[in-house]
Amino acid sequence: MMKILAISGSLRKESLNTQLLKTVAEFVDEGTSIELFDLADIPLYNGDLDGDTKPAPVQALLDAIAEADGMLFATPEYNYSVPGVLKNAIDWVSRPAFDSVMRGKPTGVMSSSMSTLGGARAQVHLRDILAATLTPVYLAPDFALACAHTAFDEEGRLVDESTRNFLQKYLTGYTQWVASQRA
Amino acid sequence: MMKILAISGSLRKESLNTQLLKTVAEFVDEGTSIELFDLADIPLYNGDLDGDTKPAPVQALLDAIAEADGMLFATPEYNYSVPGVLKNAIDWVSRPAFDSVMRGKPTGVMSSSMSTLGGARAQVHLRDILAATLTPVYLAPDFALACAHTAFDEEGRLVDESTRNFLQKYLTGYTQWVASQRA
Amino acid sequence: MMKILAISGSLRKESLNTQLLKTVAEFVDEGTSIELFDLADIPLYNGDLDGDTKPAPVQALLDAIAEADGMLFATPEYNYSVPGVLKNAIDWVSRPAFDSVMRGKPTGVMSSSMSTLGGARAQVHLRDILAATLTPVYLAPDFALACAHTAFDEEGRLVDESTRNFLQKYLTGYTQWVASQRA
Amino acid sequence: MMKILAISGSLRKESLNTQLLKTVAEFVDEGTSIELFDLADIPLYNGDLDGDTKPAPVQALLDAIAEADGMLFATPEYNYSVPGVLKNAIDWVSRPAFDSVMRGKPTGVMSSSMSTLGGARAQVHLRDILAATLTPVYLAPDFALACAHTAFDEEGRLVDESTRNFLQKYLTGYTQWVASQRA
Repeated sequence: MMKILAISGSLRKESLNTQLLKTVAEFVDEGTSIELFDLADIPLYNGDLDGDTKPAPVQALLDAIAEADGMLFATPEYNYSVPGVLKNAIDWVSRPAFDSVMRGKPTGVMSSSMSTLGGARAQVHLRDILAATLTPVYLAPDFALACAHTAFDEEGRLVDESTRNFLQKYLTGYTQWVASQRA
Repeated sequence: MMKILAISGSLRKESLNTQLLKTVAEFVDEGTSIELFDLADIPLYNGDLDGDTKPAPVQALLDAIAEADGMLFATPEYNYSVPGVLKNAIDWVSRPAFDSVMRGKPTGVMSSSMSTLGGARAQVHLRDILAATLTPVYLAPDFALACAHTAFDEEGRLVDESTRNFLQKYLTGYTQWVASQRA
Repeated sequence: MMKILAISGSLRKESLNTQLLKTVAEFVDEGTSIELFDLADIPLYNGDLDGDTKPAPVQALLDAIAEADGMLFATPEYNYSVPGVLKNAIDWVSRPAFDSVMRGKPTGVMSSSMSTLGGARAQVHLRDILAATLTPVYLAPDFALACAHTAFDEEGRLVDESTRNFLQKYLTGYTQWVASQRA
Repeated sequence: MMKILAISGSLRKESLNTQLLKTVAEFVDEGTSIELFDLADIPLYNGDLDGDTKPAPVQALLDAIAEADGMLFATPEYNYSVPGVLKNAIDWVSRPAFDSVMRGKPTGVMSSSMSTLGGARAQVHLRDILAATLTPVYLAPDFALACAHTAFDEEGRLVDESTRNFLQKYLTGYTQWVASQRA
C-alpha cells in the first residue's frame, strides 16, 4: 500500500481544490490510499508555542506527513501566492530548518482557480517554499485547473475529457515517482 | 498628523521584527504616529466566514488600514517566504480583488532575521503579493536586518551606527513618500 | 508631449508582443509618442566590457530611457520568466545599482503569449527585477494577453472588444500615472 | 566516469562564479570530470533563428548537455535574478517545452556574490526557471558564497575552512545524487 497525504489550501466546505483532491482517488489504483488532511484546526504559527510539545492539530499533521509516502497539494491562488492557511501549516511542520519531516518527502503540486490561470502563480510560490524545506516536487507540466467552478458536475466528477486525461497522466506519473522514491 | 500602521510578521513576544517596528518611533518626527497591529487574533482565512460581517479582529485590521496613511511591514523569512501568519492577514483584507482597502495604500517593506540574509527572500515574495493587491511599495535599497539577534541592546535600541543611519534614511524617505502620496 | 519607450521581450519579426506594442499608439492620445526600441543589437552583458564607454547599442538604450517619460514593456513568458534577451538589456542599463537611469522611471508591464496564461508568470519575475532597479511599476489589474496568436487581425488590429476595452483602460491609467509622476 | 557540465552565469574573465566552478574539480573524486562551458558565443535568442539547424554555439551547448550526466550552475545575482546571459542560454536549450535536453537532467545550483547575500535571490529565480524545464535540482541547504571577492587566495583556492567544508558536503551530496539518478 502507498499512502498519499492530500492537503487543500482552502478551508471552504465547497472548495474546488478540496473537490479536486477528492476526485484523485478515482484516478489512482487500488494500492494507493488518499488521506485528506483538514488544516482548519492548525493554529497561527507562534514560535513561543513551538516547543517539544506541539499543539495537537500540528502533531497530527506531523504524524500524518511522517506516515505518508508522499504529499499532494491542491492550492488556490490568493494574491499571486499560496493562501496564508497553507503557508502557515508548512511553517509549523518545516522545523528544524533543512531537517524536518518534509525533507525528502515526494510531493505533488496542483492548483485550481476560477480564473483562466488556474492558480499557476501560486504553484511558483509553493515550489519556492518547498525548495526551502528540501522537499522534492514531482516534475511534470503543471496541473493547474482553470475555470474550476465549471469543471465538476453535481456529483463532483470532473467532466471535461481532456482535463481528465491530463489529470490521469499527472497522477499516474506522480504515483510511479513516489513509488520509485520509496524503493 | 500622519498615521502609520506597523505590522509584524511574527507573533513571538520577543520577535525581532516586532522589536524593529517598536524602534521606528525613534526615527520619525513628532507628527508621525506608529500604531502596531497584532495579528494574533486574526482567524485562519475561510471564505465561508467572509461575508458582509467580518470576524471582529479582521474588521479591526480593515479599519486600521483604512484610517492609516501608510502601512509598514517587518517580516521574518520562513521557508524563503513570508510567514503564513502575515499572508493570512493579507488574504482577509485584500478583498474584493483589485479593490480592497489595501489598494493604493503606500507601504514600506522591511525584514529581519538571524541569518546573514536578513529576510531578503521574504521581501521578494511580499512584494509579489503586494503587487496583486495593487499596493504601492516604497522603492529604496532593501532594509533587511541581518543577524538581528545581535542588533539590539537590552533596552531594545539598535546599536550599530551604520544600521541606524540606513534605517534613518529608509524611514525618512518612506515617510516623505507617504506624505507625498497623501497630498 | 509625453514620450514612452516601448520595449518588447521578443526579437521575432512577427512577435506578438512587438505587435501589441505597435497597437499601443492607437490607444493613447496625440500628445503621447511611442518609440519602439529593438533589443537585437544589445550584446551579452559582460562586466569586462562595461566601462565608461558603453557599446553603442547599449548607449542608445541608456539615452532612450533617459529621454523617455516612461517605459512600457511587453514580454513573452519563457520558462516561467522573462526572456534572457530582456533581462540582459536590463542588466546593462541598471548600473550602478540603485542609481541607474531606470531608477524612478515610471513603467508599465504587459505580456502576451499563446497560452491561456498570457505570460502572467513572466510579469511576476519582471516586477521582481524592476523592484531591484527601484523602478516604479504601474499598478492595475495585469494586462496579460492570452491566446495572443488569435488576438490580431491581418492588419494587426486587436479584434476582441473586451480586450480592447481592457487595454484602453490600462493605457489610459498608465499614461495618466506617468504624467502625474512627471509633474 | 561521470561528466558534469559546469555553467557560469558571468562572462567576466575574473568572474567569481567561474572561479568557483574551477575549484569544483578539487572537491570531487577522480571518476568525475568537470567541463566548463563558456556562454560568450551564444547569440541572443530569436525564434526566427531557431529552426532545425541551430547556431553552432547553441548546438555545442545542446550536445554538451546531452552528453553530461549532470549540470552545475554558478550564478551571480543581477537585479534579484539570474543574469540575462544565463537565462538566454536556457531559453535556447529548453525547447521544445517540457521535452528538451534539460528535462530530467540532474542539476546543482550554486551562487556567489560580493554581497552578504551570496546570490540567494538569483537561486530562487533559477529554480523557478528549472521547474519550467522539468529539470530536477539537487536539494540541500543553498551553497551561496557571500563576500566572494574575499573568498579566494591568489592561486584561486577557497581559503575559509568552513566554506570549504560546506562546499565539500554540497558537492559530495550532489555527485552521489547525480550518480543515483543515472543508475
